Amino acid sequence: MPTLPQLKFTGAVVEARLGSRGTAAPSASSRGSKPSSPTAALTPRAAYTEIWEQYNYDQLDCAGASVSRTTIRSNGLYLPVYSNAARLTYVVEGECVHSEVIPGCPETYQAFQQPGQQYRGGAAGEQQQQGSRADEHQKVRRLKRGDIVATPPGFVQWFYNDGNTDLVLVTLLDTANSQNQLDNQDRAFFLAGNPQRAQEPREAEQKQGAEVNYNNIFSGFADEILQEVLGTSRETVERVKGRNDYRGHIILVRHGLEMIKPLSYQEEEQQRHQLTNGFEETICTARLRENMANPARADVYNPQAGYIRNVNRLNLPVLGYLYLSAERGVLYRNAIYAPHWNLYSHSIIYATRGSARVQIVGNQQRQSLFDGQLRQGQMIVVPQNFAVTAQAGSNGFEWISFKTGDNAISQSLAGKTSVFRGLPVDMLASMYQISRQEALKIKYNRGDELAIFPQGCRPQRAMIRNLRRDA
Amino acid sequence: MPTLPQLKFTGAVVEARLGSRGTAAPSASSRGSKPSSPTAALTPRAAYTEIWEQYNYDQLDCAGASVSRTTIRSNGLYLPVYSNAARLTYVVEGECVHSEVIPGCPETYQAFQQPGQQYRGGAAGEQQQQGSRADEHQKVRRLKRGDIVATPPGFVQWFYNDGNTDLVLVTLLDTANSQNQLDNQDRAFFLAGNPQRAQEPREAEQKQGAEVNYNNIFSGFADEILQEVLGTSRETVERVKGRNDYRGHIILVRHGLEMIKPLSYQEEEQQRHQLTNGFEETICTARLRENMANPARADVYNPQAGYIRNVNRLNLPVLGYLYLSAERGVLYRNAIYAPHWNLYSHSIIYATRGSARVQIVGNQQRQSLFDGQLRQGQMIVVPQNFAVTAQAGSNGFEWISFKTGDNAISQSLAGKTSVFRGLPVDMLASMYQISRQEALKIKYNRGDELAIFPQGCRPQRAMIRNLRRDA
Amino acid sequence: MPTLPQLKFTGAVVEARLGSRGTAAPSASSRGSKPSSPTAALTPRAAYTEIWEQYNYDQLDCAGASVSRTTIRSNGLYLPVYSNAARLTYVVEGECVHSEVIPGCPETYQAFQQPGQQYRGGAAGEQQQQGSRADEHQKVRRLKRGDIVATPPGFVQWFYNDGNTDLVLVTLLDTANSQNQLDNQDRAFFLAGNPQRAQEPREAEQKQGAEVNYNNIFSGFADEILQEVLGTSRETVERVKGRNDYRGHIILVRHGLEMIKPLSYQEEEQQRHQLTNGFEETICTARLRENMANPARADVYNPQAGYIRNVNRLNLPVLGYLYLSAERGVLYRNAIYAPHWNLYSHSIIYATRGSARVQIVGNQQRQSLFDGQLRQGQMIVVPQNFAVTAQAGSNGFEWISFKTGDNAISQSLAGKTSVFRGLPVDMLASMYQISRQEALKIKYNRGDELAIFPQGCRPQRAMIRNLRRDA
Repeated sequence: MPTLPQLKFTGAVVEARLGSRGTAAPSASSRGSKPSSPTAALTPRAAYTEIWEQYNYDQLDCAGASVSRTTIRSNGLYLPVYSNAARLTYVVEGECVHSEVIPGCPETYQAFQQPGQQYRGGAAGEQQQQGSRADEHQKVRRLKRGDIVATPPGFVQWFYNDGNTDLVLVTLLDTANSQNQLDNQDRAFFLAGNPQRAQEPREAEQKQGAEVNYNNIFSGFADEILQEVLGTSRETVERVKGRNDYRGHIILVRHGLEMIKPLSYQEEEQQRHQLTNGFEETICTARLRENMANPARADVYNPQAGYIRNVNRLNLPVLGYLYLSAERGVLYRNAIYAPHWNLYSHSIIYATRGSARVQIVGNQQRQSLFDGQLRQGQMIVVPQNFAVTAQAGSNGFEWISFKTGDNAISQSLAGKTSVFRGLPVDMLASMYQISRQEALKIKYNRGDELAIFPQGCRPQRAMIRNLRRDA
Repeated sequence: MPTLPQLKFTGAVVEARLGSRGTAAPSASSRGSKPSSPTAALTPRAAYTEIWEQYNYDQLDCAGASVSRTTIRSNGLYLPVYSNAARLTYVVEGECVHSEVIPGCPETYQAFQQPGQQYRGGAAGEQQQQGSRADEHQKVRRLKRGDIVATPPGFVQWFYNDGNTDLVLVTLLDTANSQNQLDNQDRAFFLAGNPQRAQEPREAEQKQGAEVNYNNIFSGFADEILQEVLGTSRETVERVKGRNDYRGHIILVRHGLEMIKPLSYQEEEQQRHQLTNGFEETICTARLRENMANPARADVYNPQAGYIRNVNRLNLPVLGYLYLSAERGVLYRNAIYAPHWNLYSHSIIYATRGSARVQIVGNQQRQSLFDGQLRQGQMIVVPQNFAVTAQAGSNGFEWISFKTGDNAISQSLAGKTSVFRGLPVDMLASMYQISRQEALKIKYNRGDELAIFPQGCRPQRAMIRNLRRDA
Repeated sequence: MPTLPQLKFTGAVVEARLGSRGTAAPSASSRGSKPSSPTAALTPRAAYTEIWEQYNYDQLDCAGASVSRTTIRSNGLYLPVYSNAARLTYVVEGECVHSEVIPGCPETYQAFQQPGQQYRGGAAGEQQQQGSRADEHQKVRRLKRGDIVATPPGFVQWFYNDGNTDLVLVTLLDTANSQNQLDNQDRAFFLAGNPQRAQEPREAEQKQGAEVNYNNIFSGFADEILQEVLGTSRETVERVKGRNDYRGHIILVRHGLEMIKPLSYQEEEQQRHQLTNGFEETICTARLRENMANPARADVYNPQAGYIRNVNRLNLPVLGYLYLSAERGVLYRNAIYAPHWNLYSHSIIYATRGSARVQIVGNQQRQSLFDGQLRQGQMIVVPQNFAVTAQAGSNGFEWISFKTGDNAISQSLAGKTSVFRGLPVDMLASMYQISRQEALKIKYNRGDELAIFPQGCRPQRAMIRNLRRDA
């Protein structure tokens, strides 16, 4: 009998740790600044980026995506970059301002120029020639903890930490996206800096005197052409090309960054609700951000178990364009997320806080694909159609789950929307060789609870309690 | 001169035969119950599933699909299952009831509970606690010979043969579907039973004492979690996990199965036509079934040659969602299906009755890719753009053809819609170095017949007869 | 540290040269008639087809497309053919008539039959039997220099050079198209002739007496079936199958070809504008042609630098169906096309006239991927997200660029729509470690010019001039 080819998905959590020299976990590869060997060349150390590359992890390779975690210090600027991957970025900690430059869209953030006002640093003579032009640029938005932001392939984006604490971002880099025609690797194209140079400082040191290995998108163009099309001097062209720039891809802005800042987060949200109805989006005004942390907007809420929020093409339309969605969840101590499977997507779970016992079950293994702890800072992939459950540990469990489809509906194996509810009781009895009475139990006993269950309470009472709360 | 890489499509019919030990054709691989080695563990033998796996057959691998044939005895229940493949199932023989559990959709089939009515088997005490709840479940539909039913990936479905004769189903398992992100193999996830256990009974016997190889979707979860989320006993959990269940994936329901049965087929159809207009579908009320056997609904009908019926996204909208379509045809004795090619799909032909001489022609071979008999129970793949013709044998020919595209339009090389009709006569004469008179002949001689031709009649008369019938 | 897998794109121009024996460039492979060995069997030499096959060129393989160049002599007919690739054909030189046979669509070009009129060559007796039927066929359109025409996979098309000069066509063969389910190679299915036979005449000569290697779509079918379905004689069937036909895939029509010719180009255009509004297309009336050469319709126009015209799904809706678009450009002497990248497509540039210094820059290389001359008759691939610039040589530069996406938007690195315009000035200063004054320069100095810049003029003045012209 021919054997069914093995699925390459393997159950394993993967972890990346920030740290000083030598503490990097062997399972973690990094890009950008290499945690295991920070060097003087990188000071001031503005940030780290750690990346789970899909070519290093079978499970990510199967899912067609990479995941990165970036930590940006106060006043750190993640240099403008675009890539071939569709990106979803979730803010784990801190706050920042963020912008995406959308091709062909107008500069809608404009400074009102006061009479006599001048840009600092301009010589008076040149100032006249340039005109005392007020700055204008594309929309800048504020991001805070719990926000998710979507970036289509090819759009330039940047993050600037204007807060006082570290900013931690976790990003899905979806290269299996149909809009990516390049290859299966996430390829970052920076507009400035010298990112490859920063990766391997020691190698560069060894090659002292050798040609510098610079690498932003301008670096390969001829000086004379850049000088012509930018209308600038040869010295500026050298700067643009990042020659002798050792700062890496995240730089420290020593004296802060001036720009036309967005309104406060609250005002921004209010303005949005006044101005849009969710359908009147054009590409230039598309909403790219959604906050997932507010329990008041939860899709599933159980005061004893926790809450879950989804964003998808219905509540964040740009996701329909990127074929992605996301789920954020909070489980209280010992609470259980009922076993369920995703119909049209993989699910890439990153633990943002606490820990949980996670079980993943396929159709081919004698035991589960994975049965173990998923702890803060770790990640695991749940393949499409595979069933998964999680039981929070004693400190609860919080996660962000990136889903590789915009219609990432799931089917539960227990509770109110259980698959058992759709099957005749008599069939359940036959299927499992149990009595009708037992079949009724597994069909209806937890039948008024949705998706998440508090642990240890007696089912009958829980049902009644929840019913009352629903009413 | 560089050689064009060979296309992997190979012309060969593949065949699976039901039978007792030792009669299975070497070209047939099977799954579920293995025809070549039925054992006592499988009694009562409720069913067979034979499968043409795409990894065993080059032509199916190129088409990105597998095909299975399942025979279910009277009172046999094909256990609830979902998979990563989009499925089209055609009923070759017999009748059954069928259901798909659609995530998030309501249980619309409800039993009206009579006062005092109780479920059988329930102890009086528990009955009170459960409430004398009437059963309800999702829609159940009746299937009969000639029906086709569509199943999206991830939807749980089951079949129950409540008739008196064998039920024979032929199913396309389309894994090249864009909704499948898993891999290229059809992977079945059962909700109950122990399907792998049944596949290799002898192997299991040899390993007596070794850990049992159970394998439904619940089997890998921890007992304590299942007990909690199902609100049931440890004994029931053992049953749900299918431990020590040797019945395979199709089980015999000894005393029949009670459920809220659908209306009669005719009433169901009438109700549908009253309630829907073909466009008012939501995912919960989507029509999933269409009968293809009725000659009165044929798309092409020739009283001397046979008839052809197509289902596609226009008359069964769910197919637009699955990117699939199908064609069912009947050719009378010696009649010919004109040479034609499919523009946007492969065509996977399964012979349901009789036989035909089939010819398939590509662009690379000196002779045809295939020229031979296709007989009842055999299958062949016609690649996209390859031309195919069929001439029925002396007992006629009936087939179902699964097409791997929802806009599976075809272009004929002869008859009313022939490609010749679109070309200038003068060009035909130059192309083939023939006289204009001959060019007129090949353009118009069979020009009033559509797709299928009776054999041996004189063209001119046939044209006239058909014209009259058309009027 | 793990190395990022290398992208397979390699920077190289590829070139095919027409010529007599022995002059073919080693980098050019050809199909159809082999330029390096034209033989007596091919006389009268009606045409050449040269092809850059994707399996021979890494860069085309990555882009998922092949490119061909066909030269057809006066009175040459490119025999009716369909393929698995979506095609875009650009007319480099000459003019012709062209038709696509769309399955299921009516024959809308009808000859009005005069009383007593007869087709030439018909015997009187047969003529009566056939009826004195006037010819009718599908739409024929006129193509001239600068036209582009779109052909969906599986549609039969032909070209007939009814002009007095050579006709030169350059065609994109897009096999990565989602409508192609066959494989990654362009596979041509001819309705007539004997194309493979013509490819290797010497081989055939060596095998004298061996079975003839014929190969049109009819060639593999049984004679008796073709005779039946075409209603014709065995002799005609032999002709249709192309037995002993040594003319290749482009034939010379010695005395011209009669057909219902289209109106003049001008009348056709006018008629189109009267009859359609760009949205009232059905598949049978879909507009398939667009002229890209008229500067008056340019999207970008600079009287000192040149002009650029795009066709995409918005101005030629069939391209939305094929997921393709195209750009045609003209650069005057020494003018520069500003560095830019394509967000959702590769760009396959074919130089139709003159030459340019082309630079292509990725994110991985120390230097540019390519920096060299692209000359008339050469082709190069610019991968998605890679930045490209071109500076015309002293004779200017003209090109056609095929793009593998229907929303092939690009982002410029300089000028009016530069990415710099979307970024705050203060950020530019930090990014590049330059003064605000310098940042203002690179943001605004060439800020009123769009995409193409004349060379050598002083930026400030150019800005003013262009502003005046815009007003």
